[in-house]
Amino acid sequence: MSKTIAINAGSSSLKWQLYIMPSEEVIAKGIVERIGLNDSIFTIKYGEDQKYEEIIDINDHDVAVKMLLDKLIELNILASYDEITGVGHRVVAGGEDFKDSAIIDDEALAKIEALADLAPLHNPANAMGIKAFKKILPDIISVAVFDTAFHTTMPKHNYLYSIPTEYYEKYSARKYGAHGTSHMYVSQRAAEMLGKPIEELKIITCHLGNGASITAVDGGKSVDTSMGFTPLAGVTMGTRSGDIDPSLLPYLMDKLGLTDVKDMIDILNKKSGLFGLTGISSDMRDLEANMDKEEVQVAYDVFTDRIRKYIGSYVTVLNGVDAIVFTAGIGENDSHVRSEVIKGMTWFGCEIDPEKNNVRGKETVISTDDSKVKVLLIPTDEELVIARDVERLRG
Amino acid sequence: MSKTIAINAGSSSLKWQLYIMPSEEVIAKGIVERIGLNDSIFTIKYGEDQKYEEIIDINDHDVAVKMLLDKLIELNILASYDEITGVGHRVVAGGEDFKDSAIIDDEALAKIEALADLAPLHNPANAMGIKAFKKILPDIISVAVFDTAFHTTMPKHNYLYSIPTEYYEKYSARKYGAHGTSHMYVSQRAAEMLGKPIEELKIITCHLGNGASITAVDGGKSVDTSMGFTPLAGVTMGTRSGDIDPSLLPYLMDKLGLTDVKDMIDILNKKSGLFGLTGISSDMRDLEANMDKEEVQVAYDVFTDRIRKYIGSYVTVLNGVDAIVFTAGIGENDSHVRSEVIKGMTWFGCEIDPEKNNVRGKETVISTDDSKVKVLLIPTDEELVIARDVERLRG
Repeated sequence: MSKTIAINAGSSSLKWQLYIMPSEEVIAKGIVERIGLNDSIFTIKYGEDQKYEEIIDINDHDVAVKMLLDKLIELNILASYDEITGVGHRVVAGGEDFKDSAIIDDEALAKIEALADLAPLHNPANAMGIKAFKKILPDIISVAVFDTAFHTTMPKHNYLYSIPTEYYEKYSARKYGAHGTSHMYVSQRAAEMLGKPIEELKIITCHLGNGASITAVDGGKSVDTSMGFTPLAGVTMGTRSGDIDPSLLPYLMDKLGLTDVKDMIDILNKKSGLFGLTGISSDMRDLEANMDKEEVQVAYDVFTDRIRKYIGSYVTVLNGVDAIVFTAGIGENDSHVRSEVIKGMTWFGCEIDPEKNNVRGKETVISTDDSKVKVLLIPTDEELVIARDVERLRG
Repeated sequence: MSKTIAINAGSSSLKWQLYIMPSEEVIAKGIVERIGLNDSIFTIKYGEDQKYEEIIDINDHDVAVKMLLDKLIELNILASYDEITGVGHRVVAGGEDFKDSAIIDDEALAKIEALADLAPLHNPANAMGIKAFKKILPDIISVAVFDTAFHTTMPKHNYLYSIPTEYYEKYSARKYGAHGTSHMYVSQRAAEMLGKPIEELKIITCHLGNGASITAVDGGKSVDTSMGFTPLAGVTMGTRSGDIDPSLLPYLMDKLGLTDVKDMIDILNKKSGLFGLTGISSDMRDLEANMDKEEVQVAYDVFTDRIRKYIGSYVTVLNGVDAIVFTAGIGENDSHVRSEVIKGMTWFGCEIDPEKNNVRGKETVISTDDSKVKVLLIPTDEELVIARDVERLRG
């Protein structure tokens, strides 16, 4: 029996989940928010609905990790630091170097930091989390699980952009995708639920949360995905535009009086998507409470249309599809979005059963019995994949 | 009987075709190139393979038009200016104002010039052509045929980008598409060839030339198209990138030391696409002579993959497809591209007959007899649409 902790470190946050392995039981989980700001929020959930919360200034990730481990002992969740047998870290960008999860030695850590170019907001924060745990638990295995690793099986003609080829060769400008851990997990669960070897299946996975991406999974391998060089590309998201004509950038910069293209990208990342289209909210739940407003209905149609179009394009990539999977916040909980996306796909032999679809956050097949293409709802579990990979690499 | 001239004016060129209407017989056609430069090239083709060519400095479009009309008289193609009963002009951007071809009065001309914002390279040149003909033939009907008009039937959720809605309301930032005249013409011909009312058909048209776009045509109306705010978006083209992650712009600008985003867009318009991927040529014929080179094979796969993906996405937009049409330079002449695109679509019930496909530039059905989805080759004829619209609006 071992205790493994799965970590998702942001620039001012640290989300974690503590597992007993190999039983995969979650014994505690929590989040530290507002790290480096006043009134940081420190939360632990454990036992049967027990919760510990404290508001306190937490200066940096080192302090957050020390406090976390000490509180786990104080709350009798751990007897000592030594009980932790492995730490797994989510890392957003693994570039072309990391095709699988990896044990984090000095060389791997240096690579993760060097890849900040590809994920300037995420990789440095992920590295801070890694270093904080290494400082306090120097002898325990530390594993990086990359959002991009699952997508490294994409063929070259799918990951290359139609730009001068030297931009790929010199500057690594290509499609990397994201949410790989989630797409991998739900595609594998889908095969298990369908009782077929994943090698024989063509699956399209729709990870629809505040960020959203669609992936074509052929025989268990990602062959194409909607996010691109960064998580800005692809379908409409909460605040991200997804795909747009790049010519809009100089045009809008002129209109808005912007001189730095980064400010324009910032708008596309933070002020666009469902929020930009409605001016109301980036949260689908808020929008569904306002469907009488024309702009909300249009935004809803844009959102479901872009997902449907990616699904259609990936049916050509796979030359077929056995199953379509919905996961993540919206995908797991919003039956209306699921039915709207699939409604327009009867020609594909794809139909949802409204009763089966009337469900939230539960593994289930929601297509009709005679739907040629199966539609599944599968809650994602990236933390579990991280914990499993720590165990796997601990050997 | 009347004589109508169809004009496509570029910033340094004037392409034209002279029709007898309503018989639609082409009695002469030609092009004036290098207008405003030294050694302009003036060419007329007429009769049975007769050709007139002259190299001479032509300062502006006014001079070009006068020389053209005078030569037509000199060559006995026209008896006098008065024989011309109408002039039709291709205009690239019609914005939201022009939902159909329009008689060009002062107000329409002012609008066309004001729309230069949406097509800075094209509309001012189109307007020069219009003014040059108006000057010399002031009393003859002049009609503008817009590349965008056919696409004005797109529903809002397809033409809106997921960006702040005020950018659409204030600055008209939306998808307009292009090649509309071509998509309209070939979709109508497809219905005629299939012997069915176009109102009952779902057609996907692939205009594949140096510029390329894919359109979903539902019951004769464009409902979605791959080009966007400008003709940069969509599939891979000769020198244009098509869709890319907009985050690549600041990233590559940093790497390349560029400070003006317009320079980056220039690279995406002029140095990218097939040319950028191969470094060899933007012309598919040159590339097909070099298919032994790995980068050429990859570029070819990128090109056909992007087209196939748009077709797949438009099958979801239409929730079905009766026919896929190939047109324009590559679409009409490159049997290999057609078969590669369709090869990956057997799941859609779509199969090409290799023998029927072994054809160039001829109206023909190239799918197998039992292909559920018909595949057609239809040479486009935008000039004919222009001539017909002049006749229609001449009343």
